[in-house]
Amino acid sequence: MNRVMIAGVGMTRFGKHMDATIRGLVGEALAEALSDAGASNEQVDSIFFGNAAAGLLTGQEMIPGQVALRDSGLMGKPIINVENACASASSAAHLAWLSVASGQSEVALAIGAEKMTNRDKSVPFKALISAMDLEQIKAETGSDDPLEAGSAPGRSGFMDIYAGKARKYMKEAGATQEDFARVAAKAHKFGSMNPKAQFQTPLSVEDILGSRAIIDPLTLAMCSPIGDGAAVLVFTSEDFATKHGCDAVTAETITLVSGLPGGPNCNTRASDKAYNAAGISPEDIDVVELHDAASPAELMYVEELGLCGKGEGIRMIREGEMELGGRVPVNTSGGLVAKGHPVGATGCAQIVELVDQLRGRCGARQVDGAKVALAQNGGGWIEDDTAVTTLSILTR
Amino acid sequence: MNRVMIAGVGMTRFGKHMDATIRGLVGEALAEALSDAGASNEQVDSIFFGNAAAGLLTGQEMIPGQVALRDSGLMGKPIINVENACASASSAAHLAWLSVASGQSEVALAIGAEKMTNRDKSVPFKALISAMDLEQIKAETGSDDPLEAGSAPGRSGFMDIYAGKARKYMKEAGATQEDFARVAAKAHKFGSMNPKAQFQTPLSVEDILGSRAIIDPLTLAMCSPIGDGAAVLVFTSEDFATKHGCDAVTAETITLVSGLPGGPNCNTRASDKAYNAAGISPEDIDVVELHDAASPAELMYVEELGLCGKGEGIRMIREGEMELGGRVPVNTSGGLVAKGHPVGATGCAQIVELVDQLRGRCGARQVDGAKVALAQNGGGWIEDDTAVTTLSILTR
Repeated sequence: MNRVMIAGVGMTRFGKHMDATIRGLVGEALAEALSDAGASNEQVDSIFFGNAAAGLLTGQEMIPGQVALRDSGLMGKPIINVENACASASSAAHLAWLSVASGQSEVALAIGAEKMTNRDKSVPFKALISAMDLEQIKAETGSDDPLEAGSAPGRSGFMDIYAGKARKYMKEAGATQEDFARVAAKAHKFGSMNPKAQFQTPLSVEDILGSRAIIDPLTLAMCSPIGDGAAVLVFTSEDFATKHGCDAVTAETITLVSGLPGGPNCNTRASDKAYNAAGISPEDIDVVELHDAASPAELMYVEELGLCGKGEGIRMIREGEMELGGRVPVNTSGGLVAKGHPVGATGCAQIVELVDQLRGRCGARQVDGAKVALAQNGGGWIEDDTAVTTLSILTR
Repeated sequence: MNRVMIAGVGMTRFGKHMDATIRGLVGEALAEALSDAGASNEQVDSIFFGNAAAGLLTGQEMIPGQVALRDSGLMGKPIINVENACASASSAAHLAWLSVASGQSEVALAIGAEKMTNRDKSVPFKALISAMDLEQIKAETGSDDPLEAGSAPGRSGFMDIYAGKARKYMKEAGATQEDFARVAAKAHKFGSMNPKAQFQTPLSVEDILGSRAIIDPLTLAMCSPIGDGAAVLVFTSEDFATKHGCDAVTAETITLVSGLPGGPNCNTRASDKAYNAAGISPEDIDVVELHDAASPAELMYVEELGLCGKGEGIRMIREGEMELGGRVPVNTSGGLVAKGHPVGATGCAQIVELVDQLRGRCGARQVDGAKVALAQNGGGWIEDDTAVTTLSILTR
């Protein structure tokens, strides 16, 4: 397998863009990424388009990538639409990485895009619940309406899952609601330093605890919002990056596993596999983006990814180890909670942040001397585990 | 790139299985394919799941593959959902092929599955129209209902496209409605020899001309039906196939391109690229499966694929050159018109037929001494071209 570089990145600001189209969002992120890499349309060999739910959100159930790219100048190239729920974009990145690693492409694009904002708020919630097994929900509840059966009005069914995990973690590890608010405060602080984030106002622990209750122990400011956006990664061969003088980073691995209900959890298995593939230890990692669809997940995930020992996530947040200057800054982009979570775009956006961290382009939120970065992106839910998890390790 | 084998295939009978589930259909095809390859679940390294429209057809918009496979014993492995309209399954096959070719997998599965039959017939038609650019349809018609805007009640919008192409071909090349009926009669005859086909009753040219008019010049028996089904391919390294004594064929290439509106058509560009990659000439090909979503397409496609000269498709069908014993038998499975066309399963099912032809397992419809096979699978529509086309070349 050949060495794979990421030579350019681009993304829209994440947020509620009611009248935006997927085509418009992708166009903006694509132009930024190609310009960043100094690559032309002609040089692109293949395109992997991550999108989770356009069928339910906009009606464009099939060929969303070709429709989004029809005026881009990229038609004619191989375009493959990839779906893996909230890990759709990182699954596209996995394939773009593989395409360059195998020598099939010199330049491969991973695109992630989602348009979730809708005048009818039940539309995005209904789409999100379809990242669970609907037959099972129907069998258990007898209801034909998965939204009604799998959740409650005004929230995604995933918040029920995250709340359940959070309550278990409180009981087992001694976490408090304040700890989760500390995580959210860190996210919103980083969001305030990121011009691409959906939320750019710092919030205190008290603000977060005082925001609307969603489901115990989650408050609104601990939950990732509905949003729209696109993010694009330009993967290239080492040769291409050198020849064109790109400011590139190395994608050591983009590893993908599916959930194993009843077995070790997705994060443990995916990270073990990725560390192995990259020859990297958790202690080597300088900066992390992880899938904080709700803030409590961050504490559990730093443990599952081996960034600290079991039960030590609480200490990590209390002692500032995940802040700038701490042992391993986490979600410097603002994470899903503050940067936003247009589901099919998230996996690429996490990598955009890490590439910029490794290139020293992150301004006020820059992690000094970052050389090794890790992204964890999860999608869907089956039985007692995430349906799919990707782990990306980047180095400079 | 390593040599890639297809060591096992499996498929359900295609047809209207009102109460079947995607999980049940996939389970049946998967068991057949793994048993055919003599491969165990444990030996599978990665899985590419092709499905076009479960979101609109069953509601399962996200992670259809993981949901279908949750009880299969394959959870934990990498699973990626792939969508490319009617070419979804062959796009999954392209990725499974690449995964083995690059050495990333020793055994990779391509799965195609679709459940289209619905008590409300507008549901599958509405899903099919989403393989076109819905924003364009809305801009042109002002209608929010793509089904109403893009088609007519009781047929898919694609039949309007195929009928338009057919009328143009009649004018330019001198084809008659009888020629299209001859193609359909060949399809239904082959369908009668294929126990996995949706339609197994031979129909005469007169039967076909006398069937219900859909849109001039298409009659019902010239159009691929709504249907359900699944098909599975087991891709392996040459080493694996040899070591396990598999009755395998070589997948020389599975090439994928997207449409280039205004440029040379998808079939010409995809087949040029595939012939080149495989080092094969059109004259070398012994048996073909092609995307006859409506019968007239077959005549145009044999020309576009270089299997005969321009305008010679008509002679090919009139002189029996696409029959058993003819120069190059086409759609011995019955094709989409008779075997059926559960859209997200079709691309893998075409390859199932060709693998069995190369292994001499096709009984009454066997092409004597077949050594080189070609499959062409198209998906979606943008402006004046198919949105995506795959070309597979297999040898024995």
